[in-house]
Amino acid sequence: MTTLNETHNPQLQSWVESANIPGNGFPIQNLPFASFRKAGSQESFRPGVAIGDQIVDLAALANLNLFEGKAQEALNACRGTHLNELMALGQEYWSALRLALSRALRSGSDLQASIQPLLVPQADAEYTTAAKIGDYTDFYISVHHATAVGKQFRPDNPLLPNYKWIPIGYHGRASSIGVSGQQFHRPVGQLRPATEGGKPELSPCKRLDYELELGVFIGSGNELGHRIKIEDAPKHIFGLCILNDWSARDLQAWEYQPLGPFLAKNFASTISPWVVTTEALAPFQTAFSHPAEDPQPLEYLSSEENSKAGAYDLKLDVLISTEKSRSSNQQPAKLASSNFKDAYWTIAQMVTHHTVNGCNLQPGDLLGSGTLSGPNPEEAGSLLEMSEGGKKPIELPWGEKRTFLEDGDEIIIKGVCRKEGYPDISLGSVSGTVLKALF
Amino acid sequence: MTTLNETHNPQLQSWVESANIPGNGFPIQNLPFASFRKAGSQESFRPGVAIGDQIVDLAALANLNLFEGKAQEALNACRGTHLNELMALGQEYWSALRLALSRALRSGSDLQASIQPLLVPQADAEYTTAAKIGDYTDFYISVHHATAVGKQFRPDNPLLPNYKWIPIGYHGRASSIGVSGQQFHRPVGQLRPATEGGKPELSPCKRLDYELELGVFIGSGNELGHRIKIEDAPKHIFGLCILNDWSARDLQAWEYQPLGPFLAKNFASTISPWVVTTEALAPFQTAFSHPAEDPQPLEYLSSEENSKAGAYDLKLDVLISTEKSRSSNQQPAKLASSNFKDAYWTIAQMVTHHTVNGCNLQPGDLLGSGTLSGPNPEEAGSLLEMSEGGKKPIELPWGEKRTFLEDGDEIIIKGVCRKEGYPDISLGSVSGTVLKALF
Repeated sequence: MTTLNETHNPQLQSWVESANIPGNGFPIQNLPFASFRKAGSQESFRPGVAIGDQIVDLAALANLNLFEGKAQEALNACRGTHLNELMALGQEYWSALRLALSRALRSGSDLQASIQPLLVPQADAEYTTAAKIGDYTDFYISVHHATAVGKQFRPDNPLLPNYKWIPIGYHGRASSIGVSGQQFHRPVGQLRPATEGGKPELSPCKRLDYELELGVFIGSGNELGHRIKIEDAPKHIFGLCILNDWSARDLQAWEYQPLGPFLAKNFASTISPWVVTTEALAPFQTAFSHPAEDPQPLEYLSSEENSKAGAYDLKLDVLISTEKSRSSNQQPAKLASSNFKDAYWTIAQMVTHHTVNGCNLQPGDLLGSGTLSGPNPEEAGSLLEMSEGGKKPIELPWGEKRTFLEDGDEIIIKGVCRKEGYPDISLGSVSGTVLKALF
Repeated sequence: MTTLNETHNPQLQSWVESANIPGNGFPIQNLPFASFRKAGSQESFRPGVAIGDQIVDLAALANLNLFEGKAQEALNACRGTHLNELMALGQEYWSALRLALSRALRSGSDLQASIQPLLVPQADAEYTTAAKIGDYTDFYISVHHATAVGKQFRPDNPLLPNYKWIPIGYHGRASSIGVSGQQFHRPVGQLRPATEGGKPELSPCKRLDYELELGVFIGSGNELGHRIKIEDAPKHIFGLCILNDWSARDLQAWEYQPLGPFLAKNFASTISPWVVTTEALAPFQTAFSHPAEDPQPLEYLSSEENSKAGAYDLKLDVLISTEKSRSSNQQPAKLASSNFKDAYWTIAQMVTHHTVNGCNLQPGDLLGSGTLSGPNPEEAGSLLEMSEGGKKPIELPWGEKRTFLEDGDEIIIKGVCRKEGYPDISLGSVSGTVLKALF
């Protein structure tokens, strides 16, 4: 578990003025990582760290050789296009780099003159995924989501018997994961026959949905055959981003038996560019509270701190804009708000369960949390839940209604950690837009 | 569809004598690809082509600049550690390289003196996976397997209604795919509670199984959002290997609802080193025969040749050796034989279905066929089927019995295409061994 240190001092200010503006989200206590380049350029993507409205070019900083020891070694791993090399180095290196960056970016640092020329305004940048993602696994850690979706299929028995024992997960598709700004064509696929024994129809998806999730980037991995114990799990976790796991509900209903979702999920998944490290999130660690009647997890998923290792008070908001709202210059409308603290399983439990059979995780692998819905209806993490399976249309402020997504709809998800006496730590946002089907 | 050409002339002989021995499996009509190096060395892995009992070092051959045009360009893509670059070039390049290699390795070729020094005996080589595998998708294309397994759960209604419309598939884990010779520890995981509402047990898997499959390497991919039409599918398929998709049946039974298999599958999957190109397999193309009452597939999965584009008469044998059999120097015993021609869906249909929603395939992606069982009991592709879910032990010639795999068991799968008047085209073999659980 990450303990608080000088980088978490809420009084710290940066010589990058925009980082000191209350609520800017990228104060010197955050220091999230991304892979960026100048927008529209042919430059290589390269690692960067956000400070206020600027980005520190880490590849350029590495060349200046300003840091020492593990911090400089960590910087030297930032000369490629993605963060995988840095992720592979492990917690001690990430932590040393964070400390060195925190000191270098503080008001009064004698490195200001050297680093100032390496800043790139975020307004001028474009991004790719922070890591080259080898494998992507999606979990299902929100009991509220599992219950709400289960109710639509099994009203009397919504939660399956394995749910409170196993952090349920399944493999997803890595190739179609894109970064915020991703636009994708509405997927086409087979829809269930109208009558039993009838012929299915090939059609553009009619029940297209988003899923509000968090993404977890694995840092250092484990060797095939060797599990990660629950007490060691936190040091394998690099950081968190926001994930929209777009879902074609009608394709899924027809295809998913007996082997799970496939084409309903693999046409696109969108992540935020910025990855906030677990060290930056440490002040927001929280214990997941479970009703007393819930079973104690099996020993391999339990530790003294198992209820909070990789559990955060992290608020998420989903917003929508449509062709109509944009043409009339309306602000995106909020669809729902949720919080990671209402999940059932922690990130440490996800990592440990994933490897209990010896499965190897690798630096840059992405784990999805699964849809993060809260206990209340206004905290639903998908339209499937909000519209009760398409039965209850949602009214948008500009007069439109939605049960599922229409062409041109843009979904924006924002994430932020907020508490009294500490600067806001933002995960930034992820947006994605539905284009019409190529059919 | 690949047409026959001069490389398929059954009379062709090679100046590599071992390639001309009847039944050697790697005659000049085959020319399969792998990534190899000298066993036990610290050399880089690099692409090679098998001829008889030798390997042509393609990285070294590229440096000689002996070929012209697309054939030399294809060779130039063989300077890395894996075949992904060659795969990405596309069918015309693979075909040009095959033709140039066929001519260069023929008896009487004036390139013999240049190429002879580049040969490495297979006996001195070790292998890695032919490609860096980005994404791995496992299908379920054997109706006999789907029916046999379905019967164990739903005796009256074994086949789900979607089976004859959709080439059912799901995402697998790429990181734990190893090459022939892989040894892995028996996986540990949660077993279903003995009584309903009881506590599950963390235990080494008690029902460990193999799955006899073919692996399909994708060559050139498709852009996200743009599907591969059925008539274009064959040119995106680089070639075939043998795949053993190890499965933990008891872990699967407890974890797989509602999102499909996860830890039951991702602890290890083993592929053969050699990839036989679809061009080499062309003489063995066959039409899958379906009963007249089966539905016509939807139009996107149909083409004039849809019943044979990526369907081969390819025989597969599964053998077992155990600690006991090896200590008494017994030959491995045959467990079952099967043939790819008994599958329901073709490789072209797998590729087209996978991309109909816009999902992007990339060079080096691996598709598994799913367990290839034939219509008869002795053609079962897994112990789950052979032992009827563990109820009927299988007697081995040396006096042992098996329902599922024991520690020390080695499973060997061989694949070969064979017909009158043509040399045998072998896929080589894949072996893997179960080690005891680390618990």
